[in-house]
Amino acid sequence: MIVSTIASHSSLQILLGAKKEGFKTRLYVSPKRRAFYSSLPIVDDLVVTEDMSAILNDDGIVVPHGSFVAYLGLEAIEKAKAKFFGNRHFLKWETTFELQDRALDRAGIPRVEVVELEEVKSDELYFVRIEGPRGGSGHFIARGSELEERISTLEEPYRIERFIPGVYLYVHFFYSPILERLELLGVDERVLIADGNARWPVKPLPYTISGNRAVALRESLLPKLYDYGTAFVEAMRELEPSGVIGPFALHFAYDGSFRAIGIASRIDGGSNADHWYSELYWGERLSMGRRIARELRLAEEEDRLGEVVT
Amino acid sequence: MIVSTIASHSSLQILLGAKKEGFKTRLYVSPKRRAFYSSLPIVDDLVVTEDMSAILNDDGIVVPHGSFVAYLGLEAIEKAKAKFFGNRHFLKWETTFELQDRALDRAGIPRVEVVELEEVKSDELYFVRIEGPRGGSGHFIARGSELEERISTLEEPYRIERFIPGVYLYVHFFYSPILERLELLGVDERVLIADGNARWPVKPLPYTISGNRAVALRESLLPKLYDYGTAFVEAMRELEPSGVIGPFALHFAYDGSFRAIGIASRIDGGSNADHWYSELYWGERLSMGRRIARELRLAEEEDRLGEVVT
Amino acid sequence: MIVSTIASHSSLQILLGAKKEGFKTRLYVSPKRRAFYSSLPIVDDLVVTEDMSAILNDDGIVVPHGSFVAYLGLEAIEKAKAKFFGNRHFLKWETTFELQDRALDRAGIPRVEVVELEEVKSDELYFVRIEGPRGGSGHFIARGSELEERISTLEEPYRIERFIPGVYLYVHFFYSPILERLELLGVDERVLIADGNARWPVKPLPYTISGNRAVALRESLLPKLYDYGTAFVEAMRELEPSGVIGPFALHFAYDGSFRAIGIASRIDGGSNADHWYSELYWGERLSMGRRIARELRLAEEEDRLGEVVT
Repeated sequence: MIVSTIASHSSLQILLGAKKEGFKTRLYVSPKRRAFYSSLPIVDDLVVTEDMSAILNDDGIVVPHGSFVAYLGLEAIEKAKAKFFGNRHFLKWETTFELQDRALDRAGIPRVEVVELEEVKSDELYFVRIEGPRGGSGHFIARGSELEERISTLEEPYRIERFIPGVYLYVHFFYSPILERLELLGVDERVLIADGNARWPVKPLPYTISGNRAVALRESLLPKLYDYGTAFVEAMRELEPSGVIGPFALHFAYDGSFRAIGIASRIDGGSNADHWYSELYWGERLSMGRRIARELRLAEEEDRLGEVVT
Repeated sequence: MIVSTIASHSSLQILLGAKKEGFKTRLYVSPKRRAFYSSLPIVDDLVVTEDMSAILNDDGIVVPHGSFVAYLGLEAIEKAKAKFFGNRHFLKWETTFELQDRALDRAGIPRVEVVELEEVKSDELYFVRIEGPRGGSGHFIARGSELEERISTLEEPYRIERFIPGVYLYVHFFYSPILERLELLGVDERVLIADGNARWPVKPLPYTISGNRAVALRESLLPKLYDYGTAFVEAMRELEPSGVIGPFALHFAYDGSFRAIGIASRIDGGSNADHWYSELYWGERLSMGRRIARELRLAEEEDRLGEVVT
Repeated sequence: MIVSTIASHSSLQILLGAKKEGFKTRLYVSPKRRAFYSSLPIVDDLVVTEDMSAILNDDGIVVPHGSFVAYLGLEAIEKAKAKFFGNRHFLKWETTFELQDRALDRAGIPRVEVVELEEVKSDELYFVRIEGPRGGSGHFIARGSELEERISTLEEPYRIERFIPGVYLYVHFFYSPILERLELLGVDERVLIADGNARWPVKPLPYTISGNRAVALRESLLPKLYDYGTAFVEAMRELEPSGVIGPFALHFAYDGSFRAIGIASRIDGGSNADHWYSELYWGERLSMGRRIARELRLAEEEDRLGEVVT
């Protein structure tokens, strides 16, 4: 069996994990990124192409990640002949505010407050979020007084949220249909360009993500997050049968209580930050990428591949 | 032999470590946290109870952590029938300013300056610290001019410290009576709600801890910290015979020199952040939890359990 | 074969790595640092001395790190009888602005803009960088209006750079002459005293490094950085034959694009932060220190030691 993906986002851990679980690997890479990926012994079959849609006809198991929808479009993915790890109909749930909110509300997970422009107070802080996963770019923080002018130039769907001063934590889950078990595999925080203000505040800076750091969450916060994860899995089982298969993430602001600010309906880039919680379930360190490959291997061994692939 | 603890703080690494060293594990968990902990294969015996004091009569080796004093009270722990890993009389040393200062002073470790209200200057910054380990909650930073008003509402013992602008580093030690060796096993920094100001300063925020990040300390700083650790172990041997057994932590502000701001007289939650220094001593990665279990195993093998258990 | 170094900077990972690859180890340590280093089982031969120049006549393979030039001087190192891992003539390339710029320019790596005092605008922010590797100390951020006064007191060579608000990322490479392969082994960010302003900005603080944190870089940024690394290796092959052997680092400001702010022409202290990218090349976690030892072992096995030692 061969595990295939596109060279970006979290493909390194996906392919490394696949190799460690004994699979062959195939990677679709654009010519300008070839040098780096071709230097890595984890890639068995490197397909250099400008056209990523070639993967839609791949004959292996395709593992989608956070660049798939941007590269290929939802419709093409849903119609593709290739076999995808996970529920490919789940991928769309992060792409609009409406779907995201519906999922979180069904799960009973508290969300950040959305504010209408009419309600905005001039001296309060707001966070303007652009719709869809964007690696943080485009979002901005602003005082109410400057909000109307700044949103007047936006060309994409957005919404205004009440800004929550506190830390932002991204929680990485894996739901295993084979084991019927939800695993909480890690927590990260984003490294943003805006973190440049930590040493001395200069001016509001872009929220564009440049990387991720692992966070060992205060243990007393984990049970509640695990309950949220469980509720999310149950909600998606109703909303998008057969529900979540494999990785997803819940994104939270934390100022003493958790409020969801988003979801990832596939492997989240924050799982690139190495975390140890997988040892709790497996006695060894598994990246999310390897966890995916482990599920494929378990499914294959039990002749249940159909339950984890769509 | 069975290793027992309460489901909170650092119980995950304690039980994972115990399993890896070949022990059975028992965990006391409140009903509302049951779902998460019962999903983990590291727990052999899950005791679901609202009443954590059940652990005081446990027939295994109880490993105390940072939630024990809050849940059970010092007196109950000191009188408990159960066997505790470590010197149970050491646990109290973090609970009051007076004990903490006495330990640090005896060890010759420089401390943050404590300021009397009369000495406060209106335009300088101070840090008000609430007594006892509290996960950071309640502490606050304030200008001298606002200090009197703000402390007038405090209902708990506190003190005023000169604020040290710089980084705060938490150093995790393990003293092994079996090997007669002090090990420096890791350094972390806290992830606080107040870190929400890193991207853009909004207002002073709570110092409540939400997690921990590992820090690889600049190597040239380690020898001095190791000397402080050694001095602390020697001081405690006199102050609370038989002294420190197992884990403790020293908490420092660093602005070019180190000043202690506190101690943990048990495993510190910051050791939840995975660190590599244990490889220096053991050639493999041991969490603090596993290091505890390793000590138990070494003691058991040499028939010296009495030296690490009280 | 014995691997020797000086007790500072990154000697822990160098010796741990050497032990894991099967070498004997020797460490030169000053008396005041003896307690810590002598507690570590990774040191076979501890040479306690005030005079680090003893290592210049060592009969093993000396692995230089970021403290060597400060302790021993470039000239003494270049003339030393001892065998050094790597190209000892490469060590000087980080020590002056002129060499650093020449290397970066030859490689075509964009650099931070250097500003002449005459061009400074009073209301803009600048970063004053002191020449040579200094662990961050001495550098400062300042408004144009205060710049002339502040630099008037500087006694060391410096330059004025346009301040880039954003994150600062340090990328760790290893060039293997044995495998003819460039490996990108990790990324870190520095933990500075100035990070004390993250929770509440107090005043501009020293940029002195107190530690390092691993960053999992956004994967889409890695190919470009790998290309920069490759270009740097090629440039140094011309500028300082036989070029880079082993570890080096490129230091970047990132605000949406990368601009180099410096280099390390030896193992960089930021590689003390544990990173997982080595698994991509080796299937297991190797520190930079161990990667050096691995190269020595590979060279020895193929009887090619002369290619990695000067």
